[in-house]
Amino acid sequence: MNLNCTALSRADLEALKVKYEAEYRKLADLKLDLNMARGKPAPSLLDLNTAIFEQMDDLDAADGTDCRNYGVLEGLPEMRKFFGDVLNIDPERIIIGGNASLNLMYDAIARLYCFGTSKTPAWRRKKQLKFLCPSPGYDRHFAITAEFGFQMIPIEMREDGPDMDTVEKLAASDPAIKGIWCVPLYSNPQGICYSDEVVARLGKMKTAAPDFRIFWDNAYGVHHLYGKTELADIFEACEKGGHPDRPYYFFSTSKITLPGAGVSMMAASYDERQFILKHMGIQTIGHDKVNQLRTLRFLKDADGLTAQMEKLAAALRPKFEIVIKTLDRELGGTGLAEWTSPRGGYFVALDTLDGCAAETLRLAKIAGVTMTGAGATFPLKKDPRDRNIRIAPTYPTCEELQMAMDLFCICVKLAGVRKLLGEY
Amino acid sequence: MNLNCTALSRADLEALKVKYEAEYRKLADLKLDLNMARGKPAPSLLDLNTAIFEQMDDLDAADGTDCRNYGVLEGLPEMRKFFGDVLNIDPERIIIGGNASLNLMYDAIARLYCFGTSKTPAWRRKKQLKFLCPSPGYDRHFAITAEFGFQMIPIEMREDGPDMDTVEKLAASDPAIKGIWCVPLYSNPQGICYSDEVVARLGKMKTAAPDFRIFWDNAYGVHHLYGKTELADIFEACEKGGHPDRPYYFFSTSKITLPGAGVSMMAASYDERQFILKHMGIQTIGHDKVNQLRTLRFLKDADGLTAQMEKLAAALRPKFEIVIKTLDRELGGTGLAEWTSPRGGYFVALDTLDGCAAETLRLAKIAGVTMTGAGATFPLKKDPRDRNIRIAPTYPTCEELQMAMDLFCICVKLAGVRKLLGEY
Repeated sequence: MNLNCTALSRADLEALKVKYEAEYRKLADLKLDLNMARGKPAPSLLDLNTAIFEQMDDLDAADGTDCRNYGVLEGLPEMRKFFGDVLNIDPERIIIGGNASLNLMYDAIARLYCFGTSKTPAWRRKKQLKFLCPSPGYDRHFAITAEFGFQMIPIEMREDGPDMDTVEKLAASDPAIKGIWCVPLYSNPQGICYSDEVVARLGKMKTAAPDFRIFWDNAYGVHHLYGKTELADIFEACEKGGHPDRPYYFFSTSKITLPGAGVSMMAASYDERQFILKHMGIQTIGHDKVNQLRTLRFLKDADGLTAQMEKLAAALRPKFEIVIKTLDRELGGTGLAEWTSPRGGYFVALDTLDGCAAETLRLAKIAGVTMTGAGATFPLKKDPRDRNIRIAPTYPTCEELQMAMDLFCICVKLAGVRKLLGEY
Repeated sequence: MNLNCTALSRADLEALKVKYEAEYRKLADLKLDLNMARGKPAPSLLDLNTAIFEQMDDLDAADGTDCRNYGVLEGLPEMRKFFGDVLNIDPERIIIGGNASLNLMYDAIARLYCFGTSKTPAWRRKKQLKFLCPSPGYDRHFAITAEFGFQMIPIEMREDGPDMDTVEKLAASDPAIKGIWCVPLYSNPQGICYSDEVVARLGKMKTAAPDFRIFWDNAYGVHHLYGKTELADIFEACEKGGHPDRPYYFFSTSKITLPGAGVSMMAASYDERQFILKHMGIQTIGHDKVNQLRTLRFLKDADGLTAQMEKLAAALRPKFEIVIKTLDRELGGTGLAEWTSPRGGYFVALDTLDGCAAETLRLAKIAGVTMTGAGATFPLKKDPRDRNIRIAPTYPTCEELQMAMDLFCICVKLAGVRKLLGEY
């Protein structure tokens, strides 16, 4: 059982500091060079997908389309059906994209900015644009809205999703607020899952902007580590609420098959989809159908995907367990940190004492462990309390991960004790 | 030897009309169903690329990058070197894109519109935007500038490229003119190649807009049918002219390997490339590197590409020769049409008598041959003289192509004779 550092005397803290400094130096002397900064799958996870490169003798889609040639802007029918089956979405809502859903999200914001929606004018004409950003969240989401000049409003995350009281109040009162970023299942970085109530409130809330858009990035929608977590249907929620055009749904196989060569999709209302396809048809003749075919032949169908995800989960669970067990053992009861225990996704989020995240990561970096930068999980990379740290356990091997976590915990303790001593 | 219809008496024309109508009906009775509308390669051409699907045992790039995973925004070094070697461009100018250079062009216009250039502000702030459009040209180019609200100014095409006297005069006098679309080698649809003088003048001309951009879509840069045609270096020309940031160069393997799953690239000045990568890095983590690797392993190097293009040329030459021979035989000397005899590329362009293109294509369509729509090769699909027709011989088999050309020629003759008779 660890001591609660926040209740210790100054003398005890000084003694602990000396002890932690010695432990830190010992680990630093190992001269590790580990990178836990990015949510990348490990090569061993990608090896599970080798069959995707099997000889492609036949390049015809089910309807006879020669996938090598031009065309089929909205994606192969069987690819849309596949995503529809997996995510319980009408394929007629779905558009297949290129190798990355991030690109679809960027293009969606760019399209709203330049051309508006099927029913409202271009956003660029507005004097001010704002976006709700549940935080901590995904840095690349925030980078997109920053790029297009949105003022980003951080929204606190609760156990069941963003703080909906604040979301509703802000969205209802300010027409400059045009949308919200959501990772509804196993959120990046906390692994939080949106409750049915949160989804329902997002669907029915009043917004001052008639063209408010929910960017529903269900990146980890099938990344269950301990059995399936259900997610309410955002299309149904928005239709019930009388706002059918509100959600833009994103998903991809990047963290299922190949991160650099996955197949992405977006889904929207029927009106919005038509509008999007009209503009996308100026941008491209069609995305890579060969890769769609290859991905489909590998995953086969929704059941095939589930089987594949179980293999991935079996490989990822030990990594998540190393993280959680080490945090429990080293930091449990110290009062120096709190963390989440996600049941899926790609990350664990940890909060240090206020003002300790940057120092913790500085110590880790010096000792050879690079982690996602402090503040990265907040809009403009500014964590107002300098406390959130994203732990990405998927890339290192279990052995590397254990070493990195041991070092990381010492850094949290050392930075925390020094903070309590008023050293910075 | 054909009669010169434009010099015939009314009685002779009436007699010809009766003859052509009979010939037309005879061919229409065959109930053909041929599509010559799109510049798609035939399946038999794509079969030349089957080796691209060989087992990918090793997914590492030359520098050890695991191509399955995220990253390498600017594209694999060996892919940039390959395009550099093929096109004589410094790889440090090059960015690799996704499966289509059209997408890179759209995104480039969107970026200029939203964010401007490395040295000048966003184009969207301007009251008026104009673009020079050498015509006939590529409909999808014009669709992009139409999408972003540019007023498009058609520029007449000469034997050696666009009418540079007009280009220079307009570009120098009007700051709203922001750029020009160019297909400098075997232009779509005429197959015209830009002379060294035209390239030099494009590079050195004064433009009222400081951020004038040349969209240099060298789509057919290696598609020689009868030996290599040299193209002057647009980067060198613009640097000599004191306008290093002026050219955006585009190319892809779409019409080399797989149209739907090629590898695209753009190249620019070093300053512009840096600016573009900064914004592209918000849009995506990286394009499909597995496809880059696959394409490279298939084409190998610049010599491998040349060998591959010779195979393609051998398959395409008979098709182009069917088109030209049939036009010569059926329409030569009639005064009813003029056409180009390209030494490469994907198209042949034909001009009917003024006002006859739409009627010619209508007759062809009724009789079972669909061709690119009348006007498609002009901005806003409006051919001011209704005379230009794009012939796309690549997709049909030689047998189909011969039937289609026989019918097409009858349609040109019938529409022409009727026009001379004042029937429409």
